[in-house]
Amino acid sequence: MSHLDERYMRRALQLAERARGHTHPNPLVGAVVVKDGRIVGEGYHPRAGLPHAEVFALRQAGEAARGATVYVTLEPCNHHGRTPPCTTALLEAGVARVVVAARDPNPKAQGGLERLAQAGVAVQWGVLEAEARAQNEVFFHGLEQNRPFVLWKAATTLDGRVATRTGHAQWVTGPQSRRIAHAYRQSLAAIAVGVGTVLADDPALTVRDPEFRPYPWMLEPPPLRDPLKVVFDTQARTPPQARLFAPGPRGEPARVVVFVGAAAPLERTRALEAAGARVVPLPDEEGRPSLRAALEWLWNEGIDGLLLEGGPTLAGAFVRAGLVDKLALFLAPKLVGEGRPLLAGLGAARMDEALGVTLTRREWVGEELWLEGRIAGQAPRRRTYVHGNR
Amino acid sequence: MSHLDERYMRRALQLAERARGHTHPNPLVGAVVVKDGRIVGEGYHPRAGLPHAEVFALRQAGEAARGATVYVTLEPCNHHGRTPPCTTALLEAGVARVVVAARDPNPKAQGGLERLAQAGVAVQWGVLEAEARAQNEVFFHGLEQNRPFVLWKAATTLDGRVATRTGHAQWVTGPQSRRIAHAYRQSLAAIAVGVGTVLADDPALTVRDPEFRPYPWMLEPPPLRDPLKVVFDTQARTPPQARLFAPGPRGEPARVVVFVGAAAPLERTRALEAAGARVVPLPDEEGRPSLRAALEWLWNEGIDGLLLEGGPTLAGAFVRAGLVDKLALFLAPKLVGEGRPLLAGLGAARMDEALGVTLTRREWVGEELWLEGRIAGQAPRRRTYVHGNR
Repeated sequence: MSHLDERYMRRALQLAERARGHTHPNPLVGAVVVKDGRIVGEGYHPRAGLPHAEVFALRQAGEAARGATVYVTLEPCNHHGRTPPCTTALLEAGVARVVVAARDPNPKAQGGLERLAQAGVAVQWGVLEAEARAQNEVFFHGLEQNRPFVLWKAATTLDGRVATRTGHAQWVTGPQSRRIAHAYRQSLAAIAVGVGTVLADDPALTVRDPEFRPYPWMLEPPPLRDPLKVVFDTQARTPPQARLFAPGPRGEPARVVVFVGAAAPLERTRALEAAGARVVPLPDEEGRPSLRAALEWLWNEGIDGLLLEGGPTLAGAFVRAGLVDKLALFLAPKLVGEGRPLLAGLGAARMDEALGVTLTRREWVGEELWLEGRIAGQAPRRRTYVHGNR
Repeated sequence: MSHLDERYMRRALQLAERARGHTHPNPLVGAVVVKDGRIVGEGYHPRAGLPHAEVFALRQAGEAARGATVYVTLEPCNHHGRTPPCTTALLEAGVARVVVAARDPNPKAQGGLERLAQAGVAVQWGVLEAEARAQNEVFFHGLEQNRPFVLWKAATTLDGRVATRTGHAQWVTGPQSRRIAHAYRQSLAAIAVGVGTVLADDPALTVRDPEFRPYPWMLEPPPLRDPLKVVFDTQARTPPQARLFAPGPRGEPARVVVFVGAAAPLERTRALEAAGARVVPLPDEEGRPSLRAALEWLWNEGIDGLLLEGGPTLAGAFVRAGLVDKLALFLAPKLVGEGRPLLAGLGAARMDEALGVTLTRREWVGEELWLEGRIAGQAPRRRTYVHGNR
């Protein structure tokens, strides 16, 4: 792998990023065509149903693609989906070499590099693979784990409080952090709270700002769509008149799932169904409704990413079950004293039993700290694909 | 004020810093002599009882001091203390101009600039004044507030826990942060804990590492001296055999003060006195032993800085009383769940009533975050000196 390979692949990653929020359920993909040390074509996948990144890049390159090298962030697909296979387009264009960041984890789409190699194209993969995987973390996670990617988002004071002792939480952080936090809602297909949060705050769980662009370079706002709203509610205590049942920004009915325990009272589950919710009973797992079963149900409904926005109890349950794939935490420089903690329902006995967090982002937003990380002891990533040669 | 003035003053601040930990009860002071655009003399105050910074700088400059400009971080003294006044030395050396960062807040030493100006020396002050005040924050605070500077130091997890639910706290942070945290002990004259900490952890409250240099450039370790150990203990529950009564590193008896409430049982206070403690009863203030009275007592004993190392209860009491002048907080990227909070005994009802922290340091120590700041609503600085002309 040369420095030039990395440079062109970095450009391809940049191009891919332009469509963030638009491509669901497809991944972000970018491609660059290089001929005689010059970029002659660039492209990215703009939206599901439109052509893939390679096609746009090859179109721009035109005749120059013959004998060129193509850099693409994800292995070119080898199947007929809504569009013909990219491998065919690459072979027809007569490219000499294809460099890939990450192999495709989707069994239906795999085999692209093999087909290209058999046709005499030089192939290589693993260039900036980690970056490419991070760019599509939800996509890779789903295909490798067969359950939704779970992102737990929270905002606390310096003393670890998400709300005051009276439950008041508006606001822990300032507008700048809240905008960033809100962008997580746009990037995941579902949003979950516990019934405690519904009863305390009555949240709408909508994508509040239809004009919001999570990334300043975005050409247009992401498609305006409220996430699937998920409530964990063992006893079905969610009020049928809760705000989360209100219609979406274009008048479309809210999509609400209420996960209940097996012993939830029928009259209340019926009332929730009458209000428009799908009520899904969960089997017990160690005496509590199984979060694993809930994730499996969501996965089968096509939900690949779940944003946990609930309070300490729901967060504690997911952490205890080892089901948090990523943590996004906003820390505000203030002290509230006694109040609601970040996590409830678990507690290490010894400090060396605390769960370590591997920070992958630590960025100041004004005076507030924006962290992202992985929690130790949560479900490990299973890699179902073969590692590239580097 | 010119760029050159700032540059030379920054050098003087650097020189002053060399003696950190050595000069108590004197402040850090640095001086630079500049003649014809060249530094011809440098000095700093190395230790109480030894000459002041200006004298060392003038000695090095020798004859070159005549007609030179002298930059000094603190107004030259105008009184006979353990050394003759620096104003006399400057006049005898024949300097043409004196530039000062901060005026001297000590009423006994003031008037230096006036005397120099009357003798025909050009004088100026206010160059890098904020930096100079920060360098000697304990010194300035004491003289302006007539009470010790209180620094509250703590280490928490990301979820705001200083210990687990069982009280286990070893360790929240790693060795690198703990070394930095330990340096605070060397920089302040006294260290305070609550009786809860004594009963739970039985701390020695010593300066554990005699070779420790808080700053890598330090020529020698700071003088080896345990801080005065202070216990806040309303009911005199401190065990007379507690480790904090053990002799210091050179066999000297521990200096321990136990602040008790007016109703503390006599037999226990007698036992503490027999163990070597000074037992000081505090008057009540709003139904609790007065922290203000404790600080006043310490100030009258010559204590200008107090490090709060106690647990949530003591920290909460100081914060509630508005007596924390500086916060030093180490945040470790881990989650412990339920456990001991950073602050107890207070709690805002609404999030907008939380105490804001103005961060003055935010530095990563490996994966841990080192913060310093001031807490809003704590006792404001009173300035007893006249502001400089800039």
